[in-house]
Amino acid sequence: MRVLAVDPGLTRCGVAVVDGGTGHRATLVHVGVVRTSLDLQTGDRLAQVHSQLTALVAEHSPDVVAVERVFAQHNVSSVMGTAQAAGIVMLVASQAGVRLAVHTPSEVKAAVTGSGRADKAQVGTMVARILGLAAPPRPADAADAVALALCQLWRGRAASRLEAATGAPRRQG
Amino acid sequence: MRVLAVDPGLTRCGVAVVDGGTGHRATLVHVGVVRTSLDLQTGDRLAQVHSQLTALVAEHSPDVVAVERVFAQHNVSSVMGTAQAAGIVMLVASQAGVRLAVHTPSEVKAAVTGSGRADKAQVGTMVARILGLAAPPRPADAADAVALALCQLWRGRAASRLEAATGAPRRQG
Repeated sequence: MRVLAVDPGLTRCGVAVVDGGTGHRATLVHVGVVRTSLDLQTGDRLAQVHSQLTALVAEHSPDVVAVERVFAQHNVSSVMGTAQAAGIVMLVASQAGVRLAVHTPSEVKAAVTGSGRADKAQVGTMVARILGLAAPPRPADAADAVALALCQLWRGRAASRLEAATGAPRRQG
Repeated sequence: MRVLAVDPGLTRCGVAVVDGGTGHRATLVHVGVVRTSLDLQTGDRLAQVHSQLTALVAEHSPDVVAVERVFAQHNVSSVMGTAQAAGIVMLVASQAGVRLAVHTPSEVKAAVTGSGRADKAQVGTMVARILGLAAPPRPADAADAVALALCQLWRGRAASRLEAATGAPRRQG
């Protein structure tokens, strides 16, 4: 199971590709950021996000694309750009025919630290520990994307087991 | 000068193509709505918006794409989907190499009614009057898109004249 996780933003998206599965330790395949040009209009920046993410999906052939849910009440000044970047992530997954999963920030923090209120430093530390890295991925957006990928590997798998056991319908995320 | 205007929404986008220019009465070329399937996930719905708008741009070859600015404080329950649909409009314009213009809802209302606080009925009435239509376009999203196109034709032209007169740099909108 390969997950491409994206921490969305108009200026910078954290991206991570992580492999994992039952009985296998999670392996970091790729981590980094997708940047846009500050001097461009929003539409052109969204097009940069679109083309770079489309290339990443083509390069890594993920089974699932995971994205963080954006909440309207958070940081109003940048939330529209973040929401639009998240929309581009969803568009790219749909256009590539890859399943999309959405997790809340607190689900992601809880998955890697045990607490939904963990701070960024704690998330980075745990991501490095879980994957056997010498240091947390930088910048923080990249570490957040890795945490999101781990969240999807663990929570997504649990959700799938639940479905198999109960015959409950598959739900997003 | 041909404007493709889009009133963005995740369920339904109003779309209008209007021709106009100095000394020419504005002419309605196309008006309608782009709909998405309620039973699909957001990413697939954004992909429907993307493909339908891309087809409209290819069919009508507009000089400008106009979209309404989305404000974070309005109608929080639907604002994320609206913002993401607006992001797709901007993406489509960028990918097609067409100039993008953004206007606020009050600029649009003021352009066609003289008042930034006009209601939807008043906007529909004035759109029909200005274009010589027997009745306002339906649904209201379609009428709003026509009003946005007229706003761009009139305000965009004024802004261009101002640039020509002052040598001021071109600004978005």
